[in-house]
Amino acid sequence: MLLVEILRGSKVESRHSGAFVVADSEGRLVLSGGDAGRAIYPRSATKALQALPLLLSGAADRFGLTDTELALACASHTGTELHAGTAAAMLARAGRDELCLECGTHWPTSNSAALALAAAGRKPGPLHNNCSGKHAGFICTAIGTGRDPAGYVSPDHPTMRAVTQAVGVVAGTDLAAQVPAVDGCSIPTFMMPLGALAAGFARFGSGSNMPEGFAQAAARLRRAVAANPVMLAGEGMFDTLIAQALGETAFVKLGAEGVYCGALPALGLGFALKCDDGAPRAAEAATAALLRHFLGPNPVLDRLASPTITNWNGIEVGSIRPCVV
Amino acid sequence: MLLVEILRGSKVESRHSGAFVVADSEGRLVLSGGDAGRAIYPRSATKALQALPLLLSGAADRFGLTDTELALACASHTGTELHAGTAAAMLARAGRDELCLECGTHWPTSNSAALALAAAGRKPGPLHNNCSGKHAGFICTAIGTGRDPAGYVSPDHPTMRAVTQAVGVVAGTDLAAQVPAVDGCSIPTFMMPLGALAAGFARFGSGSNMPEGFAQAAARLRRAVAANPVMLAGEGMFDTLIAQALGETAFVKLGAEGVYCGALPALGLGFALKCDDGAPRAAEAATAALLRHFLGPNPVLDRLASPTITNWNGIEVGSIRPCVV
Repeated sequence: MLLVEILRGSKVESRHSGAFVVADSEGRLVLSGGDAGRAIYPRSATKALQALPLLLSGAADRFGLTDTELALACASHTGTELHAGTAAAMLARAGRDELCLECGTHWPTSNSAALALAAAGRKPGPLHNNCSGKHAGFICTAIGTGRDPAGYVSPDHPTMRAVTQAVGVVAGTDLAAQVPAVDGCSIPTFMMPLGALAAGFARFGSGSNMPEGFAQAAARLRRAVAANPVMLAGEGMFDTLIAQALGETAFVKLGAEGVYCGALPALGLGFALKCDDGAPRAAEAATAALLRHFLGPNPVLDRLASPTITNWNGIEVGSIRPCVV
Repeated sequence: MLLVEILRGSKVESRHSGAFVVADSEGRLVLSGGDAGRAIYPRSATKALQALPLLLSGAADRFGLTDTELALACASHTGTELHAGTAAAMLARAGRDELCLECGTHWPTSNSAALALAAAGRKPGPLHNNCSGKHAGFICTAIGTGRDPAGYVSPDHPTMRAVTQAVGVVAGTDLAAQVPAVDGCSIPTFMMPLGALAAGFARFGSGSNMPEGFAQAAARLRRAVAANPVMLAGEGMFDTLIAQALGETAFVKLGAEGVYCGALPALGLGFALKCDDGAPRAAEAATAALLRHFLGPNPVLDRLASPTITNWNGIEVGSIRPCVV
């Protein structure tokens, strides 16, 4: 289905198609568009589910991780010094440092953070990788359960097995038999049906239909993110703006290649959305429109659902129009 | 039609659709895919056509513009010091400087150029705008024909009228009656049928079916670009790699929002391609596959048609697969 149109002047210049599912914690389909039966790589959209073993294992409590740090474990962050420093603090609690990270290095996705690093004559390290908080969480989980973290990105490492199992449990889908692909940060990534992801996030948001301990762990992660929106992504980023505007009313997380997953806890609903072509601008606008449909009008959602496009002189040259609901 | 598939591991993760037309200078359709009757905003893909008045007016000769500078007038460059300095030299030949530029300012699209600027404690100016060479060409055209360049980005400025008319003449389509949209660099951008663009670029490449003087001007621009591939875009960029690999055998130019236009002079053909969702990665792979189809195998085209995707650790995690021919 058509998710989003990109207008220049009054004419449609580009368009994005895709699919989405909204479901409850029983897996009942509430609303969908496009191929609702489709499986996708959710990528970083499941980071909050991947962080569950950090709490379930007791590692978070053992190392005294703060809510700020737990929020960063769920994040695709923009690599500011605040983010990098928080990831370093997580590792320090487990007696480690950035040498332990296996996520690889890239320049901060925040332009201002990247330019500030360069202006200081510095280069980025793995702490600036947008996944460093998640990886610091994996390392804390490994050490907290008495494992050597080396090789934790491998699908066969005990910690990564626990992560994969937790995601599968929440989504009600067995991932163990699947040969995964490799994510940008080198951990395994599994194909999952949109409906399973939507139901999984309904469970993550409501606490229903999950094993002992999962509901408490999920609620703690959601509260941690709602209390630390900037940790989830960064100033001005979609996920952070949603968390700032909606608090615990919604949990929303992007994944690479045009994915969004999230929960609307008060409504007992979860959703999963994939833009066919992988474009963040379309996945964001469609997600904001979906949230508005279920939560009602809100100035932040209005702006994020239908952003204006300005050019290098600040002239308004076009707009983004969601077509999803 | 499906233009390109993005694979992660062995599975399709994302896909891009679109349309393309290959035509000769008479406007005869040679090959097409998708909605061949569709009109698009070609954006920067027509920069070489927009540069024709610079030569036709005699301004290029009056100011003694070099081939390097003519190539930059056709460019969407990456904002290196070489590009910015060349644009400044063009303006200096007409007795002007960057204060005359009306394209707006953005950080260089070359990461290394942006980081180097920041490391030097500097900020970008309009010379770093990817369109500064084109705009310097407009300013030279204005001054060379005795006009005040101020306001040259307006559709009603005599220089911009000449630019719009030249593009319309080459493409065989009257643009004067159309209300244009505004491009990223603030000049007008017009909706044009894919077939008209393809035929126009066949004319630009072959010199056929154009008014007096156009064939010589087009040939001079094509030779200038083939002799200065780095001016057209930048080191490692698709358009530059094509110009380096194929020289005068092909002229290829990107436009924003997933557009490519180009010419295959020896075959008397032109093409225009639009990726529906605006993704450069898809427009590039599909264009490389089209070029290979018409020009035969070539290691550079093979690599650009089917790039591998690596992650932050340099692990090969996927690939891009063109489906266009």
